[in-house]
Order: sequence, then C-alpha cells, then structure tokens
Amino acid sequence: MTAYGVFSTPQDDMPRIGFLDDDGWVLDLRSAGADGALGDANDLVQAPSLNPLLAAGHDAWSDVAAAVEAVAARRDRALLDPAALTMHLPFVVGDYVDFYSSIEHATNLGLILRPDGEPLLDNWRHMPVGYHGRAGTVVVSGTPVRRPWGQTRPTEGDSPNFGPTRMLDFELEVAFVTGDGPPLATPIPTVAAERHIFGLVLVNDWSARDLQSWEYQPLGPFLAKSFQTSVAPWVVPVSALIDHRVAGPMQTPLPLPHLRSPEPRNLDVHLEVHLRTARMVEAGEPHAPIASTNLSGMYWSLAQQLAHLTSNGATVRAGDLCASGTVSGSTPGSEGSLMERTWRGTRPITLPNGEIRRFLEDGDEVRMTGRSGVIDFGSVVGRVWE
Amino acid sequence: MTAYGVFSTPQDDMPRIGFLDDDGWVLDLRSAGADGALGDANDLVQAPSLNPLLAAGHDAWSDVAAAVEAVAARRDRALLDPAALTMHLPFVVGDYVDFYSSIEHATNLGLILRPDGEPLLDNWRHMPVGYHGRAGTVVVSGTPVRRPWGQTRPTEGDSPNFGPTRMLDFELEVAFVTGDGPPLATPIPTVAAERHIFGLVLVNDWSARDLQSWEYQPLGPFLAKSFQTSVAPWVVPVSALIDHRVAGPMQTPLPLPHLRSPEPRNLDVHLEVHLRTARMVEAGEPHAPIASTNLSGMYWSLAQQLAHLTSNGATVRAGDLCASGTVSGSTPGSEGSLMERTWRGTRPITLPNGEIRRFLEDGDEVRMTGRSGVIDFGSVVGRVWE
Repeated sequence: MTAYGVFSTPQDDMPRIGFLDDDGWVLDLRSAGADGALGDANDLVQAPSLNPLLAAGHDAWSDVAAAVEAVAARRDRALLDPAALTMHLPFVVGDYVDFYSSIEHATNLGLILRPDGEPLLDNWRHMPVGYHGRAGTVVVSGTPVRRPWGQTRPTEGDSPNFGPTRMLDFELEVAFVTGDGPPLATPIPTVAAERHIFGLVLVNDWSARDLQSWEYQPLGPFLAKSFQTSVAPWVVPVSALIDHRVAGPMQTPLPLPHLRSPEPRNLDVHLEVHLRTARMVEAGEPHAPIASTNLSGMYWSLAQQLAHLTSNGATVRAGDLCASGTVSGSTPGSEGSLMERTWRGTRPITLPNGEIRRFLEDGDEVRMTGRSGVIDFGSVVGRVWE
Repeated sequence: MTAYGVFSTPQDDMPRIGFLDDDGWVLDLRSAGADGALGDANDLVQAPSLNPLLAAGHDAWSDVAAAVEAVAARRDRALLDPAALTMHLPFVVGDYVDFYSSIEHATNLGLILRPDGEPLLDNWRHMPVGYHGRAGTVVVSGTPVRRPWGQTRPTEGDSPNFGPTRMLDFELEVAFVTGDGPPLATPIPTVAAERHIFGLVLVNDWSARDLQSWEYQPLGPFLAKSFQTSVAPWVVPVSALIDHRVAGPMQTPLPLPHLRSPEPRNLDVHLEVHLRTARMVEAGEPHAPIASTNLSGMYWSLAQQLAHLTSNGATVRAGDLCASGTVSGSTPGSEGSLMERTWRGTRPITLPNGEIRRFLEDGDEVRMTGRSGVIDFGSVVGRVWE
C-alpha cells in the first residue's frame, strides 16, 4: 500500500478520496466500495477529506488499509492516472506544529545567526524544540506562492522598511498527521505514539529570512512563516513504512525518561529538492537538483515529538500536522534550505545554465520529492509569483 | 444587543445558539425563528456553533442582529436563566493567535526577565508582536485546569527537571473572533478590519512561567501555554460596542502607513480578576478581587493587529481567535498576570483571609470579568485541579 489523497477531475469536480497503489495508479474510493467490497471501511472514505478516516483511529486504519488493498489488487475497477487529476488539500488541518529536530539544521542556523556563541542553545538536546504555525495557510502542492511583504530591521535610528521579502527561502520538511489523541491532561508516551500517527506528508515551509530576523524576538517566528506552507497531496500511512525503520543518531545526553524512544526510532525517507527558474522553463530545461538528504538522520523522532507535544497535557486532534523542521544532513549539498545551502547568501549556488541563486527569485519553482524504497511520497511543488 | 453563546440544558443536551439580551436573559435561537420571525437569519443560527454565522460575513451579522433583537424585544418567547444552562465552546477555533499589545505588560516582562537591558525590544513599537498558540486546547469557561508538567532549566551541568510547574499563572486577555477574510495574498487594511471582526470574548491564557523560560528560545512559547486556554462562553459583537470606542494611547514613533489606524481605535472594556482559594471555598468566603484594568489602554488596536496579521498575505478564517496579550495597566493592582502582580513571586500578595500567593496553588479558582457600560462580557472561570 502506498498513499491516500483527495482529488477531483475535469468531469467531476467533487473532491473525493483516492488511493495511490504500488504501481502508481489511483483508485477512486468514493465508488470502489459501491458493491460492498470495502465493507464497513466504505463509510470512512466517502468524505471530501481524510478527516473522518483520521478520526476513526488506529484499528480502523488497519481495517481500511486491508480492505482498500484487497480491492485495488483485484484490478477490476477503473484506475486513474494521477497526472490527470486535480489534487486538493488531503485533510482539514487542526493545529500545525513545526519542530526543529535536525541537529545539523539547528547547528547551521546557530553558526549563521550567532557566529560568536554556542551554535546549539542549551535546551536543544533536552527536548524537541517546536512552535505553532498557521494552520489556515497550509495549502496543497501546486499553489503559487506570493513573495510576502513585511517589515525588515531598520538601520540605526531609521524606520523599518516594509516591502517584499528579499530573502525568500524554502524548508524541506516531512510532517506527520495525527488521529484523535486521549483527553486533555493525558500525555501520550513514546511507546504509544504510533497509535496516534496516521501517516507522513512532504512539507515546504516557505520562509522569509529577513522578516524573521526582525520579528522573532521574543515570541518566535510569525509572519515570516505564516504566509504559506505547502504540503504534498499524498499522505503515506506509517503502517506502510514498517520495513523502512532505522536507528536514529545517538542522543547525548540521554533524554529524560518520558522522551526515550525504543529503536529503531527513525524512518528512511530519501528526500530531494529541485529548482527550475523562469529562464529554465523558457529554455525547456528540466528542474536542477539542488539538495538531497534523508529523514533517517533526524535527532528527535516522531514518537519523541508527539510525546513532548502532549507531555504538558495538551491534546491532539484528527488532522493535526506536525512537521519535522528543516531536514539537513552533514555533507555539502544535503542542506534543506537556501539559508544553509548558500550560507545566508554568502556562498551562492550556480545552476546548470549559469544562473546563480542566494535566495528564491520570482518565477522560481521549487519541487521536493520523497521516497522509501518503492514507496513514493509524491512531490510538493510551488512557484514564486512573477 | 449583547452577546451570543452556545448552550444546552439538562432536559435537552443538544448544543444550540443562545442570545443574551440586555436584561441578562437567554433566548434560544434554535426555536426562536420557528414561526418565521427571524426570516433568512434563521438559517445562520441553527448550528451547534457560531461558525456558520461567522462565515456569513459582516452584512449578514447586521441582519441577524436586527432580526434577533426584534424577536427578543417582543418578549413572547420563553427566556432562560443563564445560571441554569450548560455553556459550550461558542465556536470551533480556526487559528489561535496571541498578541502582546499592552506596553505596560511588555515593559513589565522586560524589566523582570532582562533587568539589565532595555525593557522593550526594538521591534515592539513598530509592530503588534504576536505568535500562534494551540487552537485545539481552547476550552470554555468552567473547564478545570490541570497543573501542567514540563521541563525546567537545570542547574549547571545537571539534567532538566520534569515535573508539575511551580509557576502556574493566568493572563487576563480579550480576543477578537473573525469572519472569513479575503483570499490568500490579500492583506486587510486597518480601515477594513472591522468588517472582518465579529466580536470579542474574554480569555484566560494560562501560563507556566518556569516551563516558558527554559523552552522559549529561539522559537517562542510552546508547551508553557499550549496545555489550556480558557474563553468566556459569550461573544459580544463589536457592533454592540460602538458607543464604547475610545482613543488609544499615542504611538511613538508613528506606525508604518499600513499599520496606522483611525481614532478612536480602542474599546473601553473594564476588566477584573478575582481569586478564590480552596480555603476560601471551605470557609464560604467570596472571590477576592486581585486586579482590575481596562482594554482602552492597549497600545496596538484590534484593527492594527488584524492588518499586521494579514500584511504578509496570510488569510483569516471564520473562527480565528486573536487574543490581545495580557492586559496590564500602569498602576499597582492593574497587572493582568501574577508574574507582574507579584513581580515574579518576589512581592507576594496577601488575600483577605491572610493567605499569600506568588503563583497559583492547587484548588485556586480564577474568575475574570468584563463590562462596557451595560454590556456584560460574562466571565471566564477556571479552577486548578486539587
């Protein structure tokens, strides 16, 4: 089994759930169970979003997956070409949380922003640091991104400038999507976390670095991130990734007991970022790869993130979206943002056609992809308005 | 006209919308229009939440208010005693944003946390600083609050402690609730802001100060706030507050053009905080007043907050909740949090029965009230688990 998404077609604009099978074809779940073949699972896949399925909980997820896979395997239903579908946001996002769980990313940003200090702040190795982002501006892949306006730091004694960001960036992330958790004041232990995690989705957490550096003290990033966050249209169930578990990096010091996670705690997801500029489009040139990395290197795991998030008694709801934070590796070319890739613009990258990039220019299209063995996470694509 | 809320009764547990009239009685809007008396407005008040009404927009809000007031004034419907009702969260919260718009509060926190620096950070007078909170843990008044567990800063070389907060606090706030805004990448100017603001609601933004100081760098408050946020059950439409507009404090320097707001930009809402300890309950003693202040002194107005929030192109949705930040005044006894009222516990307050408080103790009940002339904002109440 691979992934669930929500689509419509030119012939039928009603959004409905589709199942992406191993061969890359899409089964329309609105109609697939019409003859009773999906049994009780049918009721959970008739909505124009994944939310009822998410809310049904872990046991139902297994039952639905089994029923859907069995029907898909029969090959007696019409299958759709995903390239011909209009994809929609696959679920209504409850709360959107963005973690900061790559030690390489956090270290890079520390070195760039605080060159004279310790790159990692003293809380970082004790908890998966995170914050809440804006759920209402999470959009599906393909939605163009307008270069946001905002304030930037003034020169001494002057007024701040207000205008389009000059440091528009992407962040390569992978998020997990939750089902309903236990009631208020009931933390989820790491060992139970996966019962509440439905699946994974690729995320581009667009960022405006110049807005961020002026606004973020003391309450954290706000408008530098809230203008848009793009997600891939396909949600890959974690149950499909059992064979892709891998041990995470050693944690020193050992996390507090409530944050200890059994190994293998991480997932092997190969991630790539590709860029295509307006000139490349005109010249008919393909996207150029600009970064590749792997989710397996994350310091804090999904289970640790969810345990931390609920450790104060906070609830999670069906449709909460919890992103990893930028996934960066330790080698050149494995950085998940231009901020790191070009070291805040001081080491521009050169594209195959000779263009250089410090940050994103108008007309640039960013495409992120993910893969675990044969399991394709699809892609999250966004083009900056020209 | 005064306020809308959602209630049920012991006889009928289906949540429905109620209208709180000037005399403090509640009209059941599910049944009030059964004979056609509410006209088209009837359709917008049949849901178990205010969301369809919020989504209907400014012109519909006026029509509904006029129709509801006319029916209420006829006095030919049964009216309910609010004390006999079970109140529910009045709307499904979209995004929850918390601003930081009282200059007295921001200055107090600066003095307490950074005694050697400038109390106000250099961005504060240029923008209404804010961040996203957790929408999924916004609860209605009356919900008990569990003292949250979390990490606190370790002594040098040691591990952080994980346990119940020792610095549980309240924050006295007033939030606005939005309707749907324009599409992505379409900022709302200050002069149009009130077309997208439905009404106001009292908020207690419970906070764990010791958790906050350890976790909040560099991405802002997270678990120190996300365990619970309580709102009053009644939403007061801004249209009912026209006679309570007042000029806000002078803004120096003048805000950037997109943040300038016509005067009178603020609202006169008298706010109070009352505390009742477990011992006071046992002795049959009433709540003791511990703080009073007024929303009129806020540096940044609702319109400025909404203009800032959307200045980067972010959308707002029906049900977004935007809180003011702690409302503190400039005189002793006008502080909207214990952090300020007791100066981080160094100047404890003495209650009428001789008990002292630095932060909240188990069994303490906090009640916040608001009033603009005859318009009662109701109260937001929460008791710490014993």
